[in-house]
Amino acid sequence: MSITEELTALGRRARAAGRIVARLSTTVKNNALLAMADGILSKTDFLQAENEKDLAAGREKGLSDAMIDRLRLSDKVLNSMAVSLREVAALADPIGEVTGMWKRPNGLLVGKQRIPLGVVGIIYESRPNVTSDAAALCLKSGNAVVLRGGSEAIHSNLAVASVLHEACERVGVPKAAIQVVETTDREAVLAMLRLEDYIDVIIPRGGEGLIRFVVENSKIPVIKHYKGVCHVYVDEHADMEMALDIAFNAKVSRPGVCNAMETLLVHKSVAGEFLPLLYKRLSASGVEVRGCTETCRILDGVKEAAEEDWATEFLGLVLAVKVVDDFSAAVTHIEEYGSLHTESIVTKDYATAQRFLREVNSSTVMVNASTRFSDGFELGLGAEIGISTTKIHAFGPMGLEELTTRKFIVYGEGQIRE
Amino acid sequence: MSITEELTALGRRARAAGRIVARLSTTVKNNALLAMADGILSKTDFLQAENEKDLAAGREKGLSDAMIDRLRLSDKVLNSMAVSLREVAALADPIGEVTGMWKRPNGLLVGKQRIPLGVVGIIYESRPNVTSDAAALCLKSGNAVVLRGGSEAIHSNLAVASVLHEACERVGVPKAAIQVVETTDREAVLAMLRLEDYIDVIIPRGGEGLIRFVVENSKIPVIKHYKGVCHVYVDEHADMEMALDIAFNAKVSRPGVCNAMETLLVHKSVAGEFLPLLYKRLSASGVEVRGCTETCRILDGVKEAAEEDWATEFLGLVLAVKVVDDFSAAVTHIEEYGSLHTESIVTKDYATAQRFLREVNSSTVMVNASTRFSDGFELGLGAEIGISTTKIHAFGPMGLEELTTRKFIVYGEGQIRE
Repeated sequence: MSITEELTALGRRARAAGRIVARLSTTVKNNALLAMADGILSKTDFLQAENEKDLAAGREKGLSDAMIDRLRLSDKVLNSMAVSLREVAALADPIGEVTGMWKRPNGLLVGKQRIPLGVVGIIYESRPNVTSDAAALCLKSGNAVVLRGGSEAIHSNLAVASVLHEACERVGVPKAAIQVVETTDREAVLAMLRLEDYIDVIIPRGGEGLIRFVVENSKIPVIKHYKGVCHVYVDEHADMEMALDIAFNAKVSRPGVCNAMETLLVHKSVAGEFLPLLYKRLSASGVEVRGCTETCRILDGVKEAAEEDWATEFLGLVLAVKVVDDFSAAVTHIEEYGSLHTESIVTKDYATAQRFLREVNSSTVMVNASTRFSDGFELGLGAEIGISTTKIHAFGPMGLEELTTRKFIVYGEGQIRE
Repeated sequence: MSITEELTALGRRARAAGRIVARLSTTVKNNALLAMADGILSKTDFLQAENEKDLAAGREKGLSDAMIDRLRLSDKVLNSMAVSLREVAALADPIGEVTGMWKRPNGLLVGKQRIPLGVVGIIYESRPNVTSDAAALCLKSGNAVVLRGGSEAIHSNLAVASVLHEACERVGVPKAAIQVVETTDREAVLAMLRLEDYIDVIIPRGGEGLIRFVVENSKIPVIKHYKGVCHVYVDEHADMEMALDIAFNAKVSRPGVCNAMETLLVHKSVAGEFLPLLYKRLSASGVEVRGCTETCRILDGVKEAAEEDWATEFLGLVLAVKVVDDFSAAVTHIEEYGSLHTESIVTKDYATAQRFLREVNSSTVMVNASTRFSDGFELGLGAEIGISTTKIHAFGPMGLEELTTRKFIVYGEGQIRE
């Protein structure tokens, strides 16, 4: 069987399973999720033995310690997978909600009702916990899922899937609702991206290279997020203590993630006071600052930022800093170099706060809060399947609701059209 | 200047204009729309003289009378363009609406607010009225628009755009908010489809060939609708008179449009009574019936349907008819052959009606109404920019709301993340 035939068969099974999953009751879906959590905890030995195959292969291939660490299904990771499954079971079921209904002059009652997308394809790297996290969100939202993880985690992913399948069988959910693509070469990804008749959306999770490859080659709509070049803008009316805390937290609390600040913008009238105070704290934490000319004038020994630094997601202890003339210059900088992810202003001025929220059209726009809150759980979505920085279908952190769409339902009494 | 350079420059202008249009007040947008309507009516001579160039070229190229008719900017068409512009001005402005807001345990106030998509690309065929209709909806929803009509309507499209531009200038809206691609070869479409940095979504309007070409070649997300293979299912509990009226109306009232019925499904227990009555009315209107074996047994002289007829959008006076054993067989047929557009059941039974609405996940699902009501205006959206039969971003008729997305807004008081 060719890879195309293999994936087409898998796609057909997913489509058929999706139709069944779409009609499952909330109780059955929740029972499946709780059985999965129990399964993960009771099959620890099996899961860790399979995981060890991936870890050994990774060590042989010379993966970095950080990569090996991300691959590992430690007791802690397995426990958090089970906790996540139970949390998803506890979330409200989005399917069936009627988000609005109105009456037409001819008496037709027209509403919009939430339904599953159908089949969701997830393409991800490394972390095998994504297998259960993503499967749980797709099942709860009534979707079948096709999971394609990296080759380095294939034994772990298949082992996790087998535990989820046992739980499915126990409560009467079709196993094909959760399928892992077993072939791990790039040809399998390409074949998967051509299944436009069987997969409704592709969500890639991983580095920019993976995401660009998926976008270039997919015939299926892709919900994507390339990078997070997040900004904090310290306004002339900022509370200095608050600005220090927010800027420090946004950069240092977890520099390797997409909602960390990469560029700090400071109004010129407060830069002379603010920047030396912040620089002291940042330097103590090992942060390298790359500044505009004015920043370099204020701060001794800071390296001048290169043009590309303004558009870079450093994902580490590096920060670009620019002094701006006014509010408009800050917004213009964000529009030119930002990635539409998350921007935050620090200000005490009411009108300036409102104007920032109104004029900046990134996916998350904040006043007086750390950019680090920009994720599905922190914003109150209950969970997160990914982040979108393109505006189609979803913009910003995506929860269960973003795995659904809405159909029109119409109650008539025999109406016909003139 | 190469076509790529030309389109890139156009894209840049659109992006810059989009940022301005996103912040326009409702009043300015409405004033622009009303000025456009006045312009269309006061420039009738100019518009029709330019239109005549397209008509003459079309006649020379040997376009069919129907095609020439679609191209023509008659007094009636111009008038309806002006009426549409005024109707869009009268619609509620979707931008700025906060669709929900909630408080997190840490005190953050998190909301979702409606914003424009940014820049919308419309690729369409023939009818020059689309130029003003689409421009109006994009402007009202705060988007810039790039319009690429067919070569056969280029003079008309440019003339309409020049009238819209005059209105823009009068009220202070940037002309680049509405741009027509002047180069009409396929290379220009390809170049447009690569402007992923400047155009946020492509909406193709036209035949299946155009739409498939756009989907195959676009690097920009596409909202699309290939075809409408709409079904009416006459249930065993149907009111016979109502079923006759709905089936006749769904097929005959305007057979050339996507919301016309293409396949009729009839429960076996009523087929013997219903089909002869309907066949009489359909035959009198010149409708050709292609039936399943059982239909051919009931109706003398009806041709047997070929397998491909069940998936065909006839767009004319042809109807496929199938007798089904039960409700499930009807739903299964729709799932197998339908296009996710519109399906309607005729039934008096409460539980059957609810089950149809629940189990059929096409973009519009109706009880006791003609499929012909499936359009943006008839369903109460006020207007229609297109129809989506894929589930990403929008599903079914698309109005102003579907030209927007929602960003997260966060009101904080200095919160930082642990």
